[in-house]
Amino acid sequence: MYMSTTTTRIPRDTEDDYTPDMAAARREFLREQTGASLNHVGAFSIDPGVLPGNVENFSGVAQVPLGVAGPLCMNGEHAQGDFFVPLATTEGTLVASYNRGMRLLNECGGVKATVVEDNMQRAPVFIFEDALAAREFGCWVEEHEHEIRAVAEATTSSGKLTYIGQYQVGPLLYLRVNFTTGDAAGQNMTAKATLAACEWMTANYPGGAEYRLTGAIDTDKKHSHINMLLTRGKRVVAEAVIKNDVLERLMGVDTASVYDYRQIHMLGGFLAGTASNSAHAANGLTAIFIATGQDVANIAESQAAITYGRLLDNGDYYWSITLTSLVVGTFGGGTGLPTQRECLELLGCYGKGKVRKLAEICAATVLAGEISLTSAVLAGNWVNSHERLGRNR
Amino acid sequence: MYMSTTTTRIPRDTEDDYTPDMAAARREFLREQTGASLNHVGAFSIDPGVLPGNVENFSGVAQVPLGVAGPLCMNGEHAQGDFFVPLATTEGTLVASYNRGMRLLNECGGVKATVVEDNMQRAPVFIFEDALAAREFGCWVEEHEHEIRAVAEATTSSGKLTYIGQYQVGPLLYLRVNFTTGDAAGQNMTAKATLAACEWMTANYPGGAEYRLTGAIDTDKKHSHINMLLTRGKRVVAEAVIKNDVLERLMGVDTASVYDYRQIHMLGGFLAGTASNSAHAANGLTAIFIATGQDVANIAESQAAITYGRLLDNGDYYWSITLTSLVVGTFGGGTGLPTQRECLELLGCYGKGKVRKLAEICAATVLAGEISLTSAVLAGNWVNSHERLGRNR
Amino acid sequence: MYMSTTTTRIPRDTEDDYTPDMAAARREFLREQTGASLNHVGAFSIDPGVLPGNVENFSGVAQVPLGVAGPLCMNGEHAQGDFFVPLATTEGTLVASYNRGMRLLNECGGVKATVVEDNMQRAPVFIFEDALAAREFGCWVEEHEHEIRAVAEATTSSGKLTYIGQYQVGPLLYLRVNFTTGDAAGQNMTAKATLAACEWMTANYPGGAEYRLTGAIDTDKKHSHINMLLTRGKRVVAEAVIKNDVLERLMGVDTASVYDYRQIHMLGGFLAGTASNSAHAANGLTAIFIATGQDVANIAESQAAITYGRLLDNGDYYWSITLTSLVVGTFGGGTGLPTQRECLELLGCYGKGKVRKLAEICAATVLAGEISLTSAVLAGNWVNSHERLGRNR
Amino acid sequence: MYMSTTTTRIPRDTEDDYTPDMAAARREFLREQTGASLNHVGAFSIDPGVLPGNVENFSGVAQVPLGVAGPLCMNGEHAQGDFFVPLATTEGTLVASYNRGMRLLNECGGVKATVVEDNMQRAPVFIFEDALAAREFGCWVEEHEHEIRAVAEATTSSGKLTYIGQYQVGPLLYLRVNFTTGDAAGQNMTAKATLAACEWMTANYPGGAEYRLTGAIDTDKKHSHINMLLTRGKRVVAEAVIKNDVLERLMGVDTASVYDYRQIHMLGGFLAGTASNSAHAANGLTAIFIATGQDVANIAESQAAITYGRLLDNGDYYWSITLTSLVVGTFGGGTGLPTQRECLELLGCYGKGKVRKLAEICAATVLAGEISLTSAVLAGNWVNSHERLGRNR
Repeated sequence: MYMSTTTTRIPRDTEDDYTPDMAAARREFLREQTGASLNHVGAFSIDPGVLPGNVENFSGVAQVPLGVAGPLCMNGEHAQGDFFVPLATTEGTLVASYNRGMRLLNECGGVKATVVEDNMQRAPVFIFEDALAAREFGCWVEEHEHEIRAVAEATTSSGKLTYIGQYQVGPLLYLRVNFTTGDAAGQNMTAKATLAACEWMTANYPGGAEYRLTGAIDTDKKHSHINMLLTRGKRVVAEAVIKNDVLERLMGVDTASVYDYRQIHMLGGFLAGTASNSAHAANGLTAIFIATGQDVANIAESQAAITYGRLLDNGDYYWSITLTSLVVGTFGGGTGLPTQRECLELLGCYGKGKVRKLAEICAATVLAGEISLTSAVLAGNWVNSHERLGRNR
Repeated sequence: MYMSTTTTRIPRDTEDDYTPDMAAARREFLREQTGASLNHVGAFSIDPGVLPGNVENFSGVAQVPLGVAGPLCMNGEHAQGDFFVPLATTEGTLVASYNRGMRLLNECGGVKATVVEDNMQRAPVFIFEDALAAREFGCWVEEHEHEIRAVAEATTSSGKLTYIGQYQVGPLLYLRVNFTTGDAAGQNMTAKATLAACEWMTANYPGGAEYRLTGAIDTDKKHSHINMLLTRGKRVVAEAVIKNDVLERLMGVDTASVYDYRQIHMLGGFLAGTASNSAHAANGLTAIFIATGQDVANIAESQAAITYGRLLDNGDYYWSITLTSLVVGTFGGGTGLPTQRECLELLGCYGKGKVRKLAEICAATVLAGEISLTSAVLAGNWVNSHERLGRNR
Repeated sequence: MYMSTTTTRIPRDTEDDYTPDMAAARREFLREQTGASLNHVGAFSIDPGVLPGNVENFSGVAQVPLGVAGPLCMNGEHAQGDFFVPLATTEGTLVASYNRGMRLLNECGGVKATVVEDNMQRAPVFIFEDALAAREFGCWVEEHEHEIRAVAEATTSSGKLTYIGQYQVGPLLYLRVNFTTGDAAGQNMTAKATLAACEWMTANYPGGAEYRLTGAIDTDKKHSHINMLLTRGKRVVAEAVIKNDVLERLMGVDTASVYDYRQIHMLGGFLAGTASNSAHAANGLTAIFIATGQDVANIAESQAAITYGRLLDNGDYYWSITLTSLVVGTFGGGTGLPTQRECLELLGCYGKGKVRKLAEICAATVLAGEISLTSAVLAGNWVNSHERLGRNR
Repeated sequence: MYMSTTTTRIPRDTEDDYTPDMAAARREFLREQTGASLNHVGAFSIDPGVLPGNVENFSGVAQVPLGVAGPLCMNGEHAQGDFFVPLATTEGTLVASYNRGMRLLNECGGVKATVVEDNMQRAPVFIFEDALAAREFGCWVEEHEHEIRAVAEATTSSGKLTYIGQYQVGPLLYLRVNFTTGDAAGQNMTAKATLAACEWMTANYPGGAEYRLTGAIDTDKKHSHINMLLTRGKRVVAEAVIKNDVLERLMGVDTASVYDYRQIHMLGGFLAGTASNSAHAANGLTAIFIATGQDVANIAESQAAITYGRLLDNGDYYWSITLTSLVVGTFGGGTGLPTQRECLELLGCYGKGKVRKLAEICAATVLAGEISLTSAVLAGNWVNSHERLGRNR
């Protein structure tokens, strides 16, 4: 069995760790340990001084190629106008595919979009001796929701507790504490507020109560059915009416074929037990997330996308996409870092009061990708375009 | 209703599109359209000439901060020795958390890891008049698997068709064509090979057969239950025996508490209908994916992680994590791009014959994160560490 | 292709169809058509005159063997005392297995049980032009919940509307209208009340609204995740502390083995994507349902059972079962038919004010079966007992 | 706390327990204990002497009302001709609803049906020290499948081992051992054969292997996704082309409305995380199961039904239903009991060589119910018909 022989640790400076020098020192250390050059990793333009709170052991950057798709014409509630969408990706064809979907959408009059629900949560579990005790605690929580809300909201300037869902299993009471979180994605804010709420409940419930800060039904950075049903982050819809003649002209397929195929695709998704009956929502979302400084691990839940379409009497096709668990922010997290902020600015989404606009753009972009890929599958040019534009992996 | 007024398109050069000048031209165009500066986006060290096949409309890069965690002592089948794991992230605490998990694992003797299954797939659907016709086609496919394999494998130098799963619904026969794909993640290779197979089947099946290249049960860039059961990409296990005294010393919790809590956590996951009973597998995986040039949208399926642990008689705790759908490659895709390649080299995973090693390192990293976060929740310092190390979103 | 040659229809009497003579006439007709004797089917003691509202084309009865398990000692909220549980089944071993589980429970001090939630629902879907219209309708519904409640409750003497859940997908707003339904299972009551509510909404919403009475998320006679989370019918817990010495003496296994095995079993359930991490909740429930005149098709949702256990410091084992979607009634449906009523009387559960008592007995019975079968699997006598007591199917 | 005061046990006769006298003695005992009369329960025509292997503590029967629907014109592979389907139920409207669906199907030319897959299983879990050991055992199992098959099949006259699925989680290897089981449903046969296989593997694997006979992925008497994907019991399709004019005349709805509504219904099912996108498959199945002596608890898995339809160019509607996990038998279990056998004879399905015929009739009956209920929802007469024919629960 291999036993570790490394005695040295990654260099750290307890006083001033976020400097180009310390990053260089770490790269040098890593070079000695592994032989990797890390030259390009070390070629960054950003000031490490802005990174506390975003990364530890900072050693350089990943340079992720950035393509832009657009314009995307939107008539959202908050996103109105033409947008150029930054997509950070290494998957060939992706930008081109979203781009052609946007072109089609534009020719059909653009995309409507709206956020229909907004909930971020932390979900502690309270543990009791028996089921009756758990149920009684649940009643007490309902009765004291006002005080619990006050305690929770005192920890944050922008978070608002909306409701506390209760889900009991045996002597365990899983709570799902829901918040709106302003322009932040809000996981940390929510955790902090929920912690305060739990401590208050524990201190004030007669006899006390034992809890863990998560009982796993949040479900953070995991897809889950509860997220699809009850929303995590933003629940946002993008929709458009696809004109049959435009679809035929640009994509070479007709709306009736799309409608029939969507049935079969949806059925396949049901059979497979999938998180999403979309074609590839995760593709566009991930590329936007990387570009704009979102917490990319939230793709795990943000991927959940439900498409619904209907054939109109005139042969046009109404197409909608609903993202049930879109976790995005325009404030906090990685949104203020240099390239990330620039990409948010490209969308007019940097800073306060912009998060719903960003959510709408995310959904509209996904819709563009749906139409493009679905058409490609039906027109039989899917593999060809990857052959032409992508690396043959 | 807003109608698009943008008449100009994103600049493109049909002859030589992948140059610093074209990227600058696009940034200039975007600046005019939106006012965004894109200065940092334009500060890249990589040569655009390497990007065809990875991105279109290349305009610059996202600079994603890179932290490094380690050493991580491994006794895998393929990964043996001390590793320093590159994590590209903007989430404060993440690198620190994985790092402390690795330290604990090292003190417990390191991590074992092994790939137990390997399957990449494309899943066409064949459409018939009735169920009997679909079933008969299915029998014909079984009888001609040898020829189908030959046709499929002729399109690729490294892909091997392993088996064709059949799943019938009414007159629809969903096939799930499984391949091993060498060191590539293999989606494109698989699509191309499956297309060839489908065309051959259509041409040779008496009476012909209608199909769509995906019936959605692949399920590409989507979590699904079929992936958890039947594997997508690599099914890889990492495991370690956590010594109770080390856990108490480093994390301030004991193994018995972990065991009990894991039950409650697992139950919460079951209740929520989640893709993963892990604590936060997606966090570490996403950071490695971005760093090493993986197709990050595959986090959608790669997140699926199943933990299993048992309390040993001596009070130590056996802890395992199984990633059922890990989609990674060490060849093709974004793996050859400059910073991405450097990060793979940091792990000794660049190039051919390295993909299982990378898969093992991914799983071991996830395990480190599981232990760290689970301990933090139990020790009650989860929120505190985010307060200290993270931005308060 | 076979074309129907039957010109005669099953005999019916438009005036007086529920008589022994009409049943005999139908049997005679069927005998002529098929040759089946139907002698035993015709040997019933019940008066067909009680059957309108329970069956059409009444032709006789299925005689389902009835075994009795017990006594089962209960300390529920509503079920207190010793119970003998009627189990209508044709599966050998079943009664014996539940019986031995009850014996063990009795020796451990009996079973606690309590209903923790109560919700029956009908779930219409409202269909709009776009997502914004659907969201606005949802807001209107919230604002008019008081009037909607009044309209719905006017259709029923015992149903009470508790809350209306809203779940939006694109331009579709799925509502889940929740009721308590007194002692009835309540599906028909709920449908009627929801119909009235929908008609009122359609008539009063400015501009009107189109709907279908079910959008499938009820989910009636189907297992679903929404039922597990949000309850359908009764959410009821049964729980007991299993003494290690009693378990060893009666079952030949110890509690530590049970605890470890339950982890593996639960994991298997998670992997399989199952409705229930129980051993065989459906067995006991189905047998009680048939015996007591429940709508047996509701086993589809009532099967959902979540077990949770913990090893206590003294080596005893706390074991709980939670039925999340138990659809039962003690009034209406088949509960008043002769043998069904007798079986409810056997449990002291006939008539008004008894439904929670019945729910508790159902859960306690399931718990007895869990312990018995789990122990049998661990003790290695599962197959043997089926060999001895069951038919070798 | 209530402590049991019952000292007497349910009477048993160790020599001759299955007699009318013993059943009467038990009813008398129960009457003394509870006051319930059990008169109708005691009014049975069947000979208790036939019941060993079907029930213990036999005390009488549940008399479940039996209606008959039909004729149902079928052009199945095995079911051809006109059938009268026995439905044991206490839910008013049910028989009438299926009956009218059958009438419509007959006028459209009848139903096609076919079994497309056949697999019954027992799923042991093997437990190892680490993942590598589990994987190696898995390889050994593959290499020795021939011997394992021989050992398993030696325990049964009709069971044939088809394949052994392997699903690994950490150090656990879940096997799913699949069999065809002739005309029996086959759970016991499968358990016995799998036990023999496990014992052989344990004895012959170098170093031995620890196992539990079920690791829960069978999944017996539980709905699960693995059942939907990989079949449990019979996977059977029923299908018909619904003529638009007949649908309009008999049901008052047109096919285009059905097609559109099915989309919305299917989406609701996807959203709810349901086991079935059917309208109410469990209703008809349960009624057939009770009537024909099936193990009714298997409704838990048999309910899983997937509908797929398409609008044809002439305006007719192709409608199919796929039952993925239909657990039925025509031999063994309760199929030989008096009323149950008579009901099988009514269908021409009693005894050997009839199980696929029965499966086809089940699916065709479900299809009739789908069309009837879906039409009722669309025509707006759903609640009315329950008002008229059902008890207002």
